[in-house]
Amino acid sequence: MDEARAPTAYEGDPALARLLEAAGSPYEVAALRRLIAGVLAAAPGPDPDAWMALAAPRVPPELAAQLSALAATLRNAAPARKIAAAERIALLRAELARQGVLGFLVPRADEHQREYIPARAQRLAWLTGFTGSAGIAAVLADKAALFTDGRYTLQARAQVNGGLYELRHITDAPLAEWLTASLGHGAVLGYDPWLHTQNEVERYAAAAERAGARMQALAQNPIDAIWTDQPPAPIAPVVPHPLRFAGKSADEKRQEIAAALAKEGVDAAVLTSPDSIAWLLNIRGGDVPHTPLPLSFAILHRDATVDLFIDLRKLAPGLAVHLGDGVRLSESQSLGAALDLLGAEGKCVQADPAASAAWVFDRLAASGAKIRRAADPCQLPKACKNPVELDGARAAHRRDGAALTRFLAWLAATAPAGGLSEIAVSDRLEEFRRGGENFRDLSFPTISGAGANGAIVHYHATRESERRLEPGTLYLVDSGAQYLDGTTDVTRTVAIGAPSTEMRDRFTRVLKGHIGLALCRFPKGTTGSQLDGLARQALWEAGLDYDHGTGHGVGSYLSVHEGPQRISKLPNTQALLPGMIVSDEPGYYKTGAYGIRIENLVVVTQQAPPAGAEREVLGFETLTLAPIDRALIEPKLLDEREIAWLDAYHARVASEIAPLVDEATAAWLAAATRPLGRR
Amino acid sequence: MDEARAPTAYEGDPALARLLEAAGSPYEVAALRRLIAGVLAAAPGPDPDAWMALAAPRVPPELAAQLSALAATLRNAAPARKIAAAERIALLRAELARQGVLGFLVPRADEHQREYIPARAQRLAWLTGFTGSAGIAAVLADKAALFTDGRYTLQARAQVNGGLYELRHITDAPLAEWLTASLGHGAVLGYDPWLHTQNEVERYAAAAERAGARMQALAQNPIDAIWTDQPPAPIAPVVPHPLRFAGKSADEKRQEIAAALAKEGVDAAVLTSPDSIAWLLNIRGGDVPHTPLPLSFAILHRDATVDLFIDLRKLAPGLAVHLGDGVRLSESQSLGAALDLLGAEGKCVQADPAASAAWVFDRLAASGAKIRRAADPCQLPKACKNPVELDGARAAHRRDGAALTRFLAWLAATAPAGGLSEIAVSDRLEEFRRGGENFRDLSFPTISGAGANGAIVHYHATRESERRLEPGTLYLVDSGAQYLDGTTDVTRTVAIGAPSTEMRDRFTRVLKGHIGLALCRFPKGTTGSQLDGLARQALWEAGLDYDHGTGHGVGSYLSVHEGPQRISKLPNTQALLPGMIVSDEPGYYKTGAYGIRIENLVVVTQQAPPAGAEREVLGFETLTLAPIDRALIEPKLLDEREIAWLDAYHARVASEIAPLVDEATAAWLAAATRPLGRR
Repeated sequence: MDEARAPTAYEGDPALARLLEAAGSPYEVAALRRLIAGVLAAAPGPDPDAWMALAAPRVPPELAAQLSALAATLRNAAPARKIAAAERIALLRAELARQGVLGFLVPRADEHQREYIPARAQRLAWLTGFTGSAGIAAVLADKAALFTDGRYTLQARAQVNGGLYELRHITDAPLAEWLTASLGHGAVLGYDPWLHTQNEVERYAAAAERAGARMQALAQNPIDAIWTDQPPAPIAPVVPHPLRFAGKSADEKRQEIAAALAKEGVDAAVLTSPDSIAWLLNIRGGDVPHTPLPLSFAILHRDATVDLFIDLRKLAPGLAVHLGDGVRLSESQSLGAALDLLGAEGKCVQADPAASAAWVFDRLAASGAKIRRAADPCQLPKACKNPVELDGARAAHRRDGAALTRFLAWLAATAPAGGLSEIAVSDRLEEFRRGGENFRDLSFPTISGAGANGAIVHYHATRESERRLEPGTLYLVDSGAQYLDGTTDVTRTVAIGAPSTEMRDRFTRVLKGHIGLALCRFPKGTTGSQLDGLARQALWEAGLDYDHGTGHGVGSYLSVHEGPQRISKLPNTQALLPGMIVSDEPGYYKTGAYGIRIENLVVVTQQAPPAGAEREVLGFETLTLAPIDRALIEPKLLDEREIAWLDAYHARVASEIAPLVDEATAAWLAAATRPLGRR
Repeated sequence: MDEARAPTAYEGDPALARLLEAAGSPYEVAALRRLIAGVLAAAPGPDPDAWMALAAPRVPPELAAQLSALAATLRNAAPARKIAAAERIALLRAELARQGVLGFLVPRADEHQREYIPARAQRLAWLTGFTGSAGIAAVLADKAALFTDGRYTLQARAQVNGGLYELRHITDAPLAEWLTASLGHGAVLGYDPWLHTQNEVERYAAAAERAGARMQALAQNPIDAIWTDQPPAPIAPVVPHPLRFAGKSADEKRQEIAAALAKEGVDAAVLTSPDSIAWLLNIRGGDVPHTPLPLSFAILHRDATVDLFIDLRKLAPGLAVHLGDGVRLSESQSLGAALDLLGAEGKCVQADPAASAAWVFDRLAASGAKIRRAADPCQLPKACKNPVELDGARAAHRRDGAALTRFLAWLAATAPAGGLSEIAVSDRLEEFRRGGENFRDLSFPTISGAGANGAIVHYHATRESERRLEPGTLYLVDSGAQYLDGTTDVTRTVAIGAPSTEMRDRFTRVLKGHIGLALCRFPKGTTGSQLDGLARQALWEAGLDYDHGTGHGVGSYLSVHEGPQRISKLPNTQALLPGMIVSDEPGYYKTGAYGIRIENLVVVTQQAPPAGAEREVLGFETLTLAPIDRALIEPKLLDEREIAWLDAYHARVASEIAPLVDEATAAWLAAATRPLGRR
């Protein structure tokens, strides 16, 4: 298909219609244009032409060329007239008046309540200009407010018109409080029941009730009514996730979870998290950036069959065969009717009020179903990786470690000359990764922070913000990739030139925390909350801390952030279980000066019990393989156990990575990983 | 009044009536008999005659003698016919049929949902025979079950007729599950809305709903209808808690909390926790064992006035003056009418769904009040002790430490001869404490466990269960006292004769955990959950652990267990704040062999920030003062920091306690507290 990549002019609809028919395509040109619009609304995947397999059973070069040409035409179509934020909010208020409500909530969320959302769901950004990854606006007839967290205070101030929106901190000045204070008696606040979890709606409804107001679910999202060039739902091919990566057949997974549900007296579970569905059915997609998710809904029945609700145009050829007899396919719009049927049959239906849209609960309640509120039943089994997934993770981390090591060696050689800037450096890292076997995508936008930018925990470099890597500063890079056999996420902090004594002190304290967690042993039943303090102790003793969690779960060629486990001060009752992958990432941030974070992924593993042990002993196996900058370590602050850990880790990095890299890199690696006592 | 204590015969009602009239008592004899019945249903207090001040404005010796005589008569009155558990459950089922419900829940709880309950509320014990401190029975027409936790599995088996009650583990085989499985479609399960929190009722109602059944609040508790000799509500004098112990006037407390409520738009808060009310109004009582609580309800209004709902017969003379103008007094039964009034006025009323009876929520909802579900507003300020309370705690702990040290010296001298048994030993400890200034009561029943009994975490010695303190075993004693100026709670584990190597290893690991917590520094905002692992690490490394929390909050001459802070794996979002008192009590238990626990109370204090500190640094000041058994310590397992802590602690114990004890004890103490390196 290489020729198809050459820019060919679009020869018109009749010509394309003939090519489609000759290729046995089921598509007329008009429908094909809608398909392409969906493709363009999905995340750009590793193979930009992969979608063409959705258009026809075979795609000869002439057809591919015309499909490319049409896609290019549509991609470059003149954007709709740019309208200002003031006009957008005015249009919204007019629409609210038309729908008979006083106000409306605009969250950064889609129907699946996950971290990454498709272009179509970027309603908050469209309305307010705010592009952060978490936030919610409330628009009333005479006032409006945007709520974001501490990460985004500055960004919101830069992007949002303060004359239109009061800017508030989502935990210090919560939305619920603002609603109670702002809604008058009898006011009606509209919301889109697809865009909030059941728990959220109940919380906001209580706040409205305190003001004598009430919430009303709207049948049509008022933003969709006024956003004339809103992208369509994304269309990226849904493909099998082969058993050699998944490790367990979808059939087996369905049987196991259905049996557990049946035991609880549940007839069916509604699944609305695309990562749960992807895991359960061993499928992957590309609808949203960085996470290979096919957006979809599903119902798992107690007989282990599944109804999958999905845009059927997305299914790659042969996918139905891969899914097998136990999976029935329907268009997404049929979900409601399927819930109605469960209700009509008096079924007991499980749904997750913390993860699923209020719409699901409303519909189930209206249908007369018995609703069981419980956690998504795929969440825990998905978190506990099977041996095949763990072997995949180890292999993926070796390749990722080789790429990162080549990058670090390159950086060590290049940075001293000066002139490197954040975006160029992270682009270079991406290049090193792209060559790797099974590489599909980054797992999140790289955080590449030099000097003071490293102190911004969720920093995203732009042409305006980026800094150069100057001598005497630190450079922090937090990055990861999606490989077919595993998802990676690693942070290294590197001294550019000679670091200060303070930098070495802080780095070593962070390292002590990292090692404290990596080395700890704990009995089965222990939660991440209990371990959180171990990673902070050395900082705490110096009156220092970091304002983020210590560890998050990571999927297997899935979300780089997944639950239910977590190492954090946030309350969490989930015990750490063998096979769970979590990050170990303490940090330290000196605002305006530098940032430090040391992040490896680790997997919970069974440990050989010491003599006299009475409990099953668990611990962590480190997956990530890349040197930790020795120049930043103050050995006097480490005890023997910590030094032994570091030297053993470095020896392992050297032995596993050296065979995968070029000679020059291997030489650099040997020096970078020599024991701490040795010069 | 000493003469009054001599046993005098009761001379009859007419004689007593004359004495009462002469003393200006408002009581007729019939009413006085009801008063005494209430007195007998309260916990026996430190002064058995204190109640007489409730009977008349002055109590001359002849009246005191007759009151004593009448009380003795009533105390020794023939108990009602003993009826067997089978008859009781049959009576209950007949009553349930009469009230038109299929089943009923019988929790171990009173109207206030606290740990200690009065005799009247011991419905579960009366019905089933089970006397543990936590449990709930569900009785249906054709089956019944008793749910207890792991502490009480054996006790329940011994006390409860397994033919009448299925015995279940409350977390492994929860009540909610049992209800879903046992209730048929359309079944109605009765409950007493006074005896369950709102959250509990909602949980059970969801379980019933899953079975197509429903819950129904009963207007009369069916146990009360059949329990012919049920004790009345307890009557113990309610007395002022003087400002020199409380440290802050009730007026100031009321103003501060009311201002916080007003800021949230709340018109009134319903208080149902007697400890909150006792703290807020600076009063104490004696209705339940070991905790100086006056059972009562209150409403705190936004204008800082309080309606106190209480059995008015309990008020000690002058208490109304102490309470002052801002507190209106009503009988307990008036609470409902007061809630109705709030509703009728459209007020926003705060109540705590995790701590207050469902009855409160039902009544507020029926009245039309706006209900704000939020934590009891006294909980957090009560937990953060003021400087006067902290000075009181320090003083109380010195006296308590002196008593415990005298006990430990006595034990060291006496135990080797053999023959000591658990109850005799704990009685002796109580004697040492009873002499102390401001001593009022034990703060909980002493846990006195020799050998294998020490491994039972919530052990209570009985004549049948108690063991002798044999050479080569460990003795564990967990005890505490209520002083007017503070509440204590301390555990020491003592070697009787020579301990084994394993015992020393385990004890030293527990000590390492104890010291790890005592020494740790942490920034403001840290929760107890984050610290929990620090106390367990040394055990975890050996594949060991303990199945209880690491620390609980402690009141100031109030509950020995109080929230909201906690050091535990259980989820908890409450940051540790200066002034909070918590226990530091890791342990290790070898079933059938021995138990180890080392418990000190500590208070969260501001620490001098190290150079370069960026956060407010907190840490712990140890309150408890008593030697830790050096014979059980293996110094090779301790690092320098740990040895330094232990030696400094022992030096402090020696210097603070030696002046308070006799010479022989002081000599023993000097040896018991010498530095670890010294023989």
